[in-house]
Order: sequence, then C-alpha cells, then structure tokens
Amino acid sequence: MTTGTIYGLGLGPGDPDLMTVRADRLLRKARHVAFFRKAGRKGQARQCVEGLIPEDAVEYPMEYPVTTEIPFTDPEYNRLLAQFYETCTARLVELARAGEDVVVLCEGDPFFYGSFMHLYMRLLDQVPVEVVPAITGMSAAWTATGAPITWGDDVLGVLMGTLPEEALVDGISRSDAVVIMKIGRHIDKVRAALRAAGKYEQAWLVEYASMPQQTVQRLAEVEGKVTPYFSIIIVHGKGRRP
Amino acid sequence: MTTGTIYGLGLGPGDPDLMTVRADRLLRKARHVAFFRKAGRKGQARQCVEGLIPEDAVEYPMEYPVTTEIPFTDPEYNRLLAQFYETCTARLVELARAGEDVVVLCEGDPFFYGSFMHLYMRLLDQVPVEVVPAITGMSAAWTATGAPITWGDDVLGVLMGTLPEEALVDGISRSDAVVIMKIGRHIDKVRAALRAAGKYEQAWLVEYASMPQQTVQRLAEVEGKVTPYFSIIIVHGKGRRP
Ligand SMILES: C[S@@+](CC[C@H](N)C(=O)[O-])C[C@H]1O[C@@H](n2cnc3c(N)ncnc32)[C@H](O)[C@@H]1O
Ligand SMILES: C[S@@+](CC[C@H](N)C(=O)[O-])C[C@H]1O[C@@H](n2cnc3c(N)ncnc32)[C@H](O)[C@@H]1O
Repeated sequence: MTTGTIYGLGLGPGDPDLMTVRADRLLRKARHVAFFRKAGRKGQARQCVEGLIPEDAVEYPMEYPVTTEIPFTDPEYNRLLAQFYETCTARLVELARAGEDVVVLCEGDPFFYGSFMHLYMRLLDQVPVEVVPAITGMSAAWTATGAPITWGDDVLGVLMGTLPEEALVDGISRSDAVVIMKIGRHIDKVRAALRAAGKYEQAWLVEYASMPQQTVQRLAEVEGKVTPYFSIIIVHGKGRRP
Repeated sequence: MTTGTIYGLGLGPGDPDLMTVRADRLLRKARHVAFFRKAGRKGQARQCVEGLIPEDAVEYPMEYPVTTEIPFTDPEYNRLLAQFYETCTARLVELARAGEDVVVLCEGDPFFYGSFMHLYMRLLDQVPVEVVPAITGMSAAWTATGAPITWGDDVLGVLMGTLPEEALVDGISRSDAVVIMKIGRHIDKVRAALRAAGKYEQAWLVEYASMPQQTVQRLAEVEGKVTPYFSIIIVHGKGRRP
C-alpha cells in the first residue's frame, strides 16, 4: 500500500471561477476533505467548494480552539493552538498512512499567512505533502478596485493590522503601494496609521473580494464602520507609466 | 451590434494547470488573442497557451519597440513606449468596436507590475475592459521553495531589482520577508544590497517558477550566475508560529 498525500489546496479568494484548473480537478475527485473553521460556523473555505466536492467525500472540520477570547501575546494562546495543530496533524498522518489522499482547503494561497502552514511544517517529515498555490485575497482586492496596484519600480508593502501602530506608520510611509490584511478590530489603529503616513485619503477598503457580497469603498467614506474578517485595505502605487 | 470586450487575461506563473478555471474557459473559446513579445521571440505568454487556444484564433503579437538598448531614464525610452502602447490600444479599440472580444495574454497577475496596465489605462474610457486576476510569479516562487513566505504579522516587502542600491538595502532591512523581481542585469547590485541588509545567506533564487525549466537554489551558492528574465529572489519571514 502506498502512503497517501496531503494536499494544501489553495482555493483562491472565494470565487470558484478563480480557482486553478488543478484545484478544481483535485476537488472533484476528493475522497477526504479537511478544513479549518471557527466553532459553530460552516467555514468559509468549505462554503467555497459547495457543490464541487463529491457528495460522498468524508469531511474533517478542524475547529479552532480559540479565536479572539485570549490575546495572542498570552502564552496560553500559543499552547492551545500548538496542541490543536498537533491533533490535526496526527489525524492527517493517520489517514495518509492508511493510504488515503486528503485535500486540506486553504483560503487564498496556502503559503501566504495561511493556517495550513502550521500543519505543513509538522507533516513535512512524516508523509508526502503537496502545496497548490492560488490567487491571494489581495490580488482579488486590487482587481476589484479597477486599478493596478504597482507600476515601474514601486515598492509594495504588505502589512497586517495586528502590527503595533508605529510599525504600521513606518511600513506605510516607506512603501509606494500598500496592502493591509487582518484588520478586524484593529481598524481604528490602521486608520490612524494611514493618516499619520499621509495615505488615508488614497486608501480603499475591499470587503469579500471576488465573493458575492464584495464591496469596494474609499476608506475615508466609511468612517466608523466595523470591517468583516474578509477585508483588505489597498493603497495603489503611482510609479513610472509611459 | 454590441461592442466587444477586451480581457486582460492573467495566465498565472506559467504552468497551464495553475491557470484559473475562468482563464481556461476564455482561452478555449477565444477568437482574437493579443500578446506582448520581444522582437524575434515567440513570446512567453503565447507559449504558455500553446494547444489551449483554438487553431483558427487570430493572433496579434505586440512587439516591444525597445528592450534594454535605451536606459529607461532616457525620455526617448518613454516616448517610444508611449507611442507603442497607443498603437496597440488603437488596434484593440478597433476590434472591440467591430464587435469582437479580444483576449490579451498577461504573465502572472495583470495588475501586478504588468505591461497590460499601460493598455488598460488607455482602453478604460473607450471600450469595455475586464481583468481576470491570476497567481503571481512570486506565489509560484515561494511555493517552489517548499517553505511559507510569511507568518503571523511578518512584513512582506516586494522590491524591484531596478531600484537604486540604497532603496534596496532599506527595503530589505525593514521587511521580515522579501521578494525581489526584475533582477536581470541588476543581480550584482541586488546581491550587494542583500549582503548589506544581512539577509544574503537566507536568500533563495527561483528561476522559471512553475515552468518545466524551474530551478530553486540558495542565492549564495550560485555566485557569478547570470539570471534569466523569469527569476525571483525570496527571503522567508520568521514570524509567530505556534
Ligand atoms: C489568515 S490571512 C489568509 C490569507 C490568504 N492565505 C491569502 O492568500 O489571501 C486572512 C486575511 O486575508 C485577507 N483576505 C483573504 N481573502 C480575502 C478576500 N477574498 N477578501 C478580502 N480579504 C481577504 C483578509 O485580510 C483576512 O484577514
Ligand atoms: C513585468 S513583471 C510581471 C509580473 C507578473 N505580472 C506577476 O504577477 O508575477 C516581470 C517579473 O516577474 C517575475 N516573474 C513572473 N513570473 C515568474 C515566474 N514564473 N518565475 C520567475 N519569475 C517570474 C520576474 O521577476 C520578472 O522579472
């Protein structure tokens, strides 16, 4: 019996039409499908593939033990998450050793700030793992704004809203084009940083890029709004353009 | 008669299996296919879709008037390129007004340092234009290294080899994870900048990511090598990982 392969399958930004040909093919013949989700939710990645995976595929929801109840600076947060990833890994290794291929659904590109990376590092020495890249959320976000993100030799800075305000101001100031992800309850800090860096008026807020609920707005025009998990802020570069 | 649509069609990094389902569909029914290429070359984007586009599709190679003979700081470079983009645009507008859809082949993601952007800005007010996002070359490059590019709240800096050395050193030093594109004959400057920023030993060189000729090497182990057009340097982030 050959050992099965664990596929870290990038689904892209949400629109199934933006999945790769390879992802589409792997999904349609999948027998085991694993995915992360928040407790009590259906899971965004899982919803993305509704109707694509075979009806009789076995599903493995992996429910995060913590979300925002514990700050991630708390060592307990780390301990709980590490334990969670260990458990998930053990389950996947077991399946692979029983000869089964497993598709792990990943939002966007698996190796770009993805949760699968934590399983990947643990799986690597134990069973065959393959990563299928995909369109990132940010590509869908800048496409949604209808304007190119970078020109000529523009510097692109990709920053997380979870960074300290000072680091955000610094990163925004020193880049020509800016992408900010993981915004959520950090939105006020992110706004302040954009203002301090003189780029607030040029910033766009894209929610649910490429999904049916997609919205594209100037950040300055949506003051006071709470942003959903799938939100990205975009500041376009202004480089060389003949 | 309805006006046709110009599609800026992202092909992704090169492997046709990494094209989107939408791109695949648009290509298979394409009647007019335009693409950039260097004079005398077949064109990388065109080669990518060999066997995918219908045999009787009409092809429109758009040949760059200049490559590296004139430095891009020379106003003549700008004038020649602007004229070239105007001519290409006029051709596409003519086709669209005659009711024809045209697919313009784009390497990687069209809005990410792409040549199509120069046509897009000129087409925008004249005829319907649609952009189909795609996997970037850098996503394929970090996937090829077999290690995630960014963790936790790592800052990702995307830099062009065409930048002055000082700007490169600055950008590399201030980012946790680094992507360097457009390397070509700037390779020595890029190496020097990576050394000055203390990240030379961690840098990987990926050539032809996702293409049959793909190579992945430690940059330090390929001293003296001339890098091809399709080269990306990757420095992985080391952020939070439970
Ligand atoms: C844990 S990261 C995962 C990123 C993903 N691997 C990718 O390639 O885009 C989650 C963040 O990605 C961003 N994101 C991903 N897809 C998105 C989409 N379709 N629309 C808006 N934001 C998205 C949001 O900022 C979200 O907070
Ligand atoms: C004009 S930019 C176009 C970028 C493209 N739009 C994208 O999304 O990747 C050309 C540069 O992209 C990089 N590149 C694009 N695809 C690549 C690939 N498959 N392998 C290596 N480098 C690639 C190289 O650094 C090259 O110099």
